[in-house]
Amino acid sequence: MYTERIESLRAMMRGRGWDAVILTGSDPHSSEYPAARWKQVEWLTGFTGEAGDVVVTLDHAGLWTDTRYFIAARQQLAGTGVELHKMRVPGQIPIPEWLASVFEGEDPVIAVDALCQNVDAIEALESAFGASPHTIVGIPDLLSPLWESRPAIPQTPVYTLDESLTGLSRSSKLLWIREFLDNNSCDGVLFTALDEIAWMLNVRASDIEYNPFVISYLLVTQERCCWFVLKDPTDDPLTDGSFDLLSSEGVELLPYSDLAIVLSQEFEGSLFVDTSTLNMSVSEVLEDAGIQLVRGTSPVVLRKAVKNPVEVEGMRRAHLEDGVAMEKFLYWIETSLGRGEKISERDASEYLGSLRSEIEGYLGDSFETISAYGSGAALPHYVTPRHDAPLLEPHGLYLCDSGGQYLFGTTDITRTVPLGRCTPLEREDYTLVLKGHIALAKAVFPRGTAGCQIDVLAREPLWASKRNFGHGTGHGVGFCLGVHEGPQDIRQNFNRQPLLPGMITSDEPGIYREGMHGIRHENLVLCVESGANDFGDWLCFETLTLCHFDTSAIEPSLLDKSEIDWLNAYNARVYESLSPRLPEEVALWLRDKTKPLSY
Amino acid sequence: MYTERIESLRAMMRGRGWDAVILTGSDPHSSEYPAARWKQVEWLTGFTGEAGDVVVTLDHAGLWTDTRYFIAARQQLAGTGVELHKMRVPGQIPIPEWLASVFEGEDPVIAVDALCQNVDAIEALESAFGASPHTIVGIPDLLSPLWESRPAIPQTPVYTLDESLTGLSRSSKLLWIREFLDNNSCDGVLFTALDEIAWMLNVRASDIEYNPFVISYLLVTQERCCWFVLKDPTDDPLTDGSFDLLSSEGVELLPYSDLAIVLSQEFEGSLFVDTSTLNMSVSEVLEDAGIQLVRGTSPVVLRKAVKNPVEVEGMRRAHLEDGVAMEKFLYWIETSLGRGEKISERDASEYLGSLRSEIEGYLGDSFETISAYGSGAALPHYVTPRHDAPLLEPHGLYLCDSGGQYLFGTTDITRTVPLGRCTPLEREDYTLVLKGHIALAKAVFPRGTAGCQIDVLAREPLWASKRNFGHGTGHGVGFCLGVHEGPQDIRQNFNRQPLLPGMITSDEPGIYREGMHGIRHENLVLCVESGANDFGDWLCFETLTLCHFDTSAIEPSLLDKSEIDWLNAYNARVYESLSPRLPEEVALWLRDKTKPLSY
Repeated sequence: MYTERIESLRAMMRGRGWDAVILTGSDPHSSEYPAARWKQVEWLTGFTGEAGDVVVTLDHAGLWTDTRYFIAARQQLAGTGVELHKMRVPGQIPIPEWLASVFEGEDPVIAVDALCQNVDAIEALESAFGASPHTIVGIPDLLSPLWESRPAIPQTPVYTLDESLTGLSRSSKLLWIREFLDNNSCDGVLFTALDEIAWMLNVRASDIEYNPFVISYLLVTQERCCWFVLKDPTDDPLTDGSFDLLSSEGVELLPYSDLAIVLSQEFEGSLFVDTSTLNMSVSEVLEDAGIQLVRGTSPVVLRKAVKNPVEVEGMRRAHLEDGVAMEKFLYWIETSLGRGEKISERDASEYLGSLRSEIEGYLGDSFETISAYGSGAALPHYVTPRHDAPLLEPHGLYLCDSGGQYLFGTTDITRTVPLGRCTPLEREDYTLVLKGHIALAKAVFPRGTAGCQIDVLAREPLWASKRNFGHGTGHGVGFCLGVHEGPQDIRQNFNRQPLLPGMITSDEPGIYREGMHGIRHENLVLCVESGANDFGDWLCFETLTLCHFDTSAIEPSLLDKSEIDWLNAYNARVYESLSPRLPEEVALWLRDKTKPLSY
Repeated sequence: MYTERIESLRAMMRGRGWDAVILTGSDPHSSEYPAARWKQVEWLTGFTGEAGDVVVTLDHAGLWTDTRYFIAARQQLAGTGVELHKMRVPGQIPIPEWLASVFEGEDPVIAVDALCQNVDAIEALESAFGASPHTIVGIPDLLSPLWESRPAIPQTPVYTLDESLTGLSRSSKLLWIREFLDNNSCDGVLFTALDEIAWMLNVRASDIEYNPFVISYLLVTQERCCWFVLKDPTDDPLTDGSFDLLSSEGVELLPYSDLAIVLSQEFEGSLFVDTSTLNMSVSEVLEDAGIQLVRGTSPVVLRKAVKNPVEVEGMRRAHLEDGVAMEKFLYWIETSLGRGEKISERDASEYLGSLRSEIEGYLGDSFETISAYGSGAALPHYVTPRHDAPLLEPHGLYLCDSGGQYLFGTTDITRTVPLGRCTPLEREDYTLVLKGHIALAKAVFPRGTAGCQIDVLAREPLWASKRNFGHGTGHGVGFCLGVHEGPQDIRQNFNRQPLLPGMITSDEPGIYREGMHGIRHENLVLCVESGANDFGDWLCFETLTLCHFDTSAIEPSLLDKSEIDWLNAYNARVYESLSPRLPEEVALWLRDKTKPLSY
């Protein structure tokens, strides 16, 4: 099927004189998770990873993805003729450089989907070619002629979040952004990233799986707030209440497709845009309209990363509720397996989802649950098979990485659960990853420190015995928004963004051994102030996630006193916080599971 | 005196219509330590720190320096009217931005010493002003009309180092750089940094204190190797042997002042230059001559940082010899004080210098010894008074940071020595700094790791109790070259240069408490390979410095088992390596000082 699709694309390329086509794994808003309509990479190649771009030339088809998906890509691309190009590895050759080298001196025509390529990506392509002749053509919905029954742009009911949940009203956010326009001498700002629009307007929907976003554009000027949201005008996605509320606050509700018309006919002056999420198609509209662009990182990126006190309280509540579901889940696994029942990876993820769905305010999962037993967990982004998923066996390790979206927050947690006897290597890896997790969780650092400057704290306990993991240690997490958000992170990059009080980041070191086991211990941590003294102004982390770490797989000789103290205090806090909300038998079981580990 | 000098400069400024003058603490080669002729900042303001630039306007005089010198600057600038501008602190305003803001919209004329400003600094100035009108005039030797008896450019005897010391012959280095020219389509390269020239030609001299460099320029083309070195043609600085040897290998020995003539009359084509060390005056010559510049970081920077096996062996030998001197020194201090003798900080540094000078191949110190008792050590770059220096007292901590230049290597070591009873806070700080030192010394890390990614290992033990230090943890060290060299370092910056096998860096965390005490524990460490496995290719450090850490000031409860193991193994290695070379009474004393610490 995929080879046929690739061949049909090549036929189109020959017909139009294109030498190469680039298709991204994203949508017109540079989203991390695209709606079905924009799963172009999956449609063309069968690859389902969250990050992957494809280049097709007349004699080559390649998928560019990162370490997380190497094993999955190798499996899913088998037989398609699509070659894996590894990213985030030494010597990586990104798409622009690869194309520039393949077509050096040949003046190629490179076609891209103008909707699904952002301006930064186009500029990287231009820059790789430099003075070497080439042509880039942007075709909106490039694949549509080939893609039968291509899904439509989704339009799900929109609802608004009250200030009691978000901590900041829509009008105060608009006031703030208009001050930003004043301070930057701009006449308007065009928001193209979906999480920023959801944050700005305190609106949510279910247009995209796992992310409660509304597919839309938002244009704000001193006078107007134009929300381009109506995909199918015959099918109003706004509940009556939301519609009235938004209108009454001056939000103009406009068709999604009217952005070009409004920009070119009704906007004058200078417009602030963030080219990391502005697509090529809209950029061409702006250029044709002669609008002066002021380029920069959207101010919403940093603002929404620093949670306000109401959001922080919501996140704490989300982790309390989520922890109850997690403990019920872990109890169920242990007792069911103990009774000899058969549980598949899929059964487990579905049961966990059902427990979360009982929570008031649950909107859905925050990403696709990774439910992986044994060697399956060695794939950091393993996808549990829909049918005939492997069974959990009463020995070794089971990894479950999951999270929920709630009206009052977002969670993301990984527990690696010993299901019985573990090998010495499993115990050692389990303990070393926990050492890394703890080292980061209890870090104290001066204000101004960036994530990349403390990432090694989670790694050195692994490095000391020459083990490592190929993914970042921590990603930012949104408030009822994307489970991955910037600008901060904790990884081996050179991201200068300091960690600020109010930022929420994951702490998730791991060890993966192909064919053997995978281990990851993940909590979310909130950056908080920790006082000032002669040496500076200090910050640290408050762990938000509430779910015990199983001590039975720990090799105690590998932990030092301060690590054991941290672990015992954390497990005690989990028991104290959750037990009043758990059924008696689960609470009793949890008391046993959280018994302190002795030195 | 300094206020008069500043006023005489202002009179000159008024006469010539200058609104501001910038004077750097450097020389025409962007050297870290300038010769006396270029100690312009000291002449004008009295400030003696190693890093400091001055700006004088008609109504302001300011010194820009970093955290290391804040306390010294405050003392030395008292009464001069020169204001301290703090660098390397949050909210710092560098000179270019400060000038651009002070003279916004005023079209100022800014005069700089064209010899002592490099092109990068001039461009930073241009960039800060942007489109705002301004004029920069470069005057070679700007201060000379005011500076009576200004010292001449030094010209000390030049000697050559044999391949048996350097590991690479002059001719093989020239071959390598000519290949570099070929690969980069350049007709020539102009070396302006003195350490690069010394490395390229395997030559040394004593033109500059602490750095065995020859003040000169070097132009290499495929056909010629022109060394602009003769400052006073009547006084040949080259010993006969060196002269003959260099000439016989095709090195043309030319007057230092002939650079402009040769470049403009005898060079054609494209020239590789490193604008971080190319001064404005030479740059103007190149521009006037219409020479096409290829800008980049000099390839010598990285090449000389990665020591070859002969250099590594030389460095190991240097540390063995240096360690003997250090242990004799520490023995002398302890026994002299024990006998009730009076030792001043100055006595101590002179005695240490005399011990080093007994070593065959000793060229001088690698920087000015910091010999500081008690609260003096709280200034990270304390300068021991020439006269009436404080006495060492038989309690508390004495800090000595020193190093030697040898024909076969360079050393840099800090020991903080308990001279008797220490306060609980002194013991705690002493131990925490040692924890930081050890954590970095025993780090294991994957190939590709940069210093800024592991710097926190040395800091987290301090951060955990909210202590810190304001300087970098580690700087690169040259081979019989500068004691500070790039491109690698270990500090809280975002320097992407990976640590490579063969690189030598210091490991020197500290804690400084003004008015109380200062502690620093410094060894040099060599980056070495540590094997490869499924998780990658691993590197670690070999400690080069050989001198025991005194265990009497340690608070053992603050060290964990692995730290005590490291310390005991290090002290045992020091004893084993040095004792055969020490006088019997010193060896016996050292055996006692290196007794293992128990858990």
